[in-house]
Amino acid sequence: MTEPVSKSGAGMGGADISEEHAMKRFPVRKIDAGIFRSGEDNVAVEEPLEISLAWLADGHEDQAAEMQHRNVAVTMRTPGDDAQLALGFLFTEGIIRSPDQVVTVSLSGAASDIDTSNRITVMLQDVPESELSKLDRNFYVTSSCGVCGKASIEAIHTQAQFPIQAEEWQVEAHMLTALPDQLAAQQRVFAGTGSIHAAAVFGPDGVTGHVYEDVGRHNAVDKLLGAGFAARELPLRNKGILVSGRASFELVQKARMAGCAILAAVGAPSSLAIDLAWDSDMTLVGFLRDGRFNIYTGPARIAHA
Amino acid sequence: MTEPVSKSGAGMGGADISEEHAMKRFPVRKIDAGIFRSGEDNVAVEEPLEISLAWLADGHEDQAAEMQHRNVAVTMRTPGDDAQLALGFLFTEGIIRSPDQVVTVSLSGAASDIDTSNRITVMLQDVPESELSKLDRNFYVTSSCGVCGKASIEAIHTQAQFPIQAEEWQVEAHMLTALPDQLAAQQRVFAGTGSIHAAAVFGPDGVTGHVYEDVGRHNAVDKLLGAGFAARELPLRNKGILVSGRASFELVQKARMAGCAILAAVGAPSSLAIDLAWDSDMTLVGFLRDGRFNIYTGPARIAHA
Repeated sequence: MTEPVSKSGAGMGGADISEEHAMKRFPVRKIDAGIFRSGEDNVAVEEPLEISLAWLADGHEDQAAEMQHRNVAVTMRTPGDDAQLALGFLFTEGIIRSPDQVVTVSLSGAASDIDTSNRITVMLQDVPESELSKLDRNFYVTSSCGVCGKASIEAIHTQAQFPIQAEEWQVEAHMLTALPDQLAAQQRVFAGTGSIHAAAVFGPDGVTGHVYEDVGRHNAVDKLLGAGFAARELPLRNKGILVSGRASFELVQKARMAGCAILAAVGAPSSLAIDLAWDSDMTLVGFLRDGRFNIYTGPARIAHA
Repeated sequence: MTEPVSKSGAGMGGADISEEHAMKRFPVRKIDAGIFRSGEDNVAVEEPLEISLAWLADGHEDQAAEMQHRNVAVTMRTPGDDAQLALGFLFTEGIIRSPDQVVTVSLSGAASDIDTSNRITVMLQDVPESELSKLDRNFYVTSSCGVCGKASIEAIHTQAQFPIQAEEWQVEAHMLTALPDQLAAQQRVFAGTGSIHAAAVFGPDGVTGHVYEDVGRHNAVDKLLGAGFAARELPLRNKGILVSGRASFELVQKARMAGCAILAAVGAPSSLAIDLAWDSDMTLVGFLRDGRFNIYTGPARIAHA
């Protein structure tokens, strides 16, 4: 893979989010115990990002190869780390499998009041038509056998290229309970705004590398995994993923696609998140806060003190 | 509109969510101060729902009219109030504008382990082709003038059928600060699981009618507004919408489509949520908790004590 993704450097260790794009000041009136006070507040920026694919289609007969374009998705996100977001999205949706398929990732200009670009194009090579046909439908949640959680889980098992390994390392309980404070300490945008999701990788010694932030929690995880994908750091062995909010099906799915055996969430899990984690032999931790946590699946990876 | 939506009764005042479909028990190990304890926990159910449209297309020449089908979306939701969810989604996306367009709303069976159906079909009449063509693209966030928040906001102004009225009533500050406790008192699934989003309508005396719950906060608002749509209670005049989480662009958009002038959120707003509320002359309240709140737009609707 070439520029501009690689310029951001060290995969999950580096990032190019800039605080002036991620936060914006707004006038506000604060009411506390009946007292009105006027001031200004930092607010997390939310802007649409359109993700498109481009690829060279084989020319028929004596025609030259032609460039094809396809809009894939529009997501509401916090600007910054957009290349990582696009790659993470495409990877966790099963559209791309290797950085070798990616020729370039380029932001193209669309004027906006925060002077950032909201269109990103990922140019690919070696893309089988069968992968592109997935774009025609919501892949994980609709299958021929019906619309249900079970079908969604089976679709992910078929897609995932990295197996989940048996216990490779044991997480110490006291290390886990220290994670939320480590995450909060690195959440620059959250510190400024009081509200934004975060995702990070942790190892035996706690949070490692960069904390990715976004108004959408799925985007924060896509940024994290897109950085790892670009830096060829996937699958995520002997590591866990930490998220600041709740553990939905979608977040467990993304961890599963990255071959990561442990997902720890500050919030609660959903039923389908637990079902997928169970069926994938993953460890799912929820309500990780205030020195406590719950283990929903895979307790063997958590060491008793 | 006919069965089965109307059977749920009194629009925003009634609901058919059943707690046994919305919660599921899972085994859990709880770790607190290094002590492990095994037990069971209630978890919020998350399952896909596929929303489809059906309509009779005019027969060409001497052919009979033919039934057309179209999948519109798959959303991960908490089962219950599915008809309201589907109608609220279609209404707030601008696909349907009046209950008179709706012939039936029917759940169709797909076997799943929680014995609920995950496919819902809304049969329409009097649907102009131009409305259906919106389904081909993500309407609010892609426009010919570029992908940006400003274009998204303009698209909503074009779509919205109900104007936002100037100050019709003034909200008392002490009434606002009482809302979160009123919401929590009625959150049956949250009380059981510790994590699920909620949306409700409030008037001068506080929360009124049913509190709708869902793992997805946009779904909770769609359920609320779909119930109001079916019961012909829209536009929402002299009322506000209260949400348990953060105020994203999407939630302000839904309130705007319902003609509701006031959105109050327990969490923080995003930049684009504030921009849309400002541009729509709406009142946006955030961080409504612990006896405090912030007014981001439209302070004239909030009464000084």
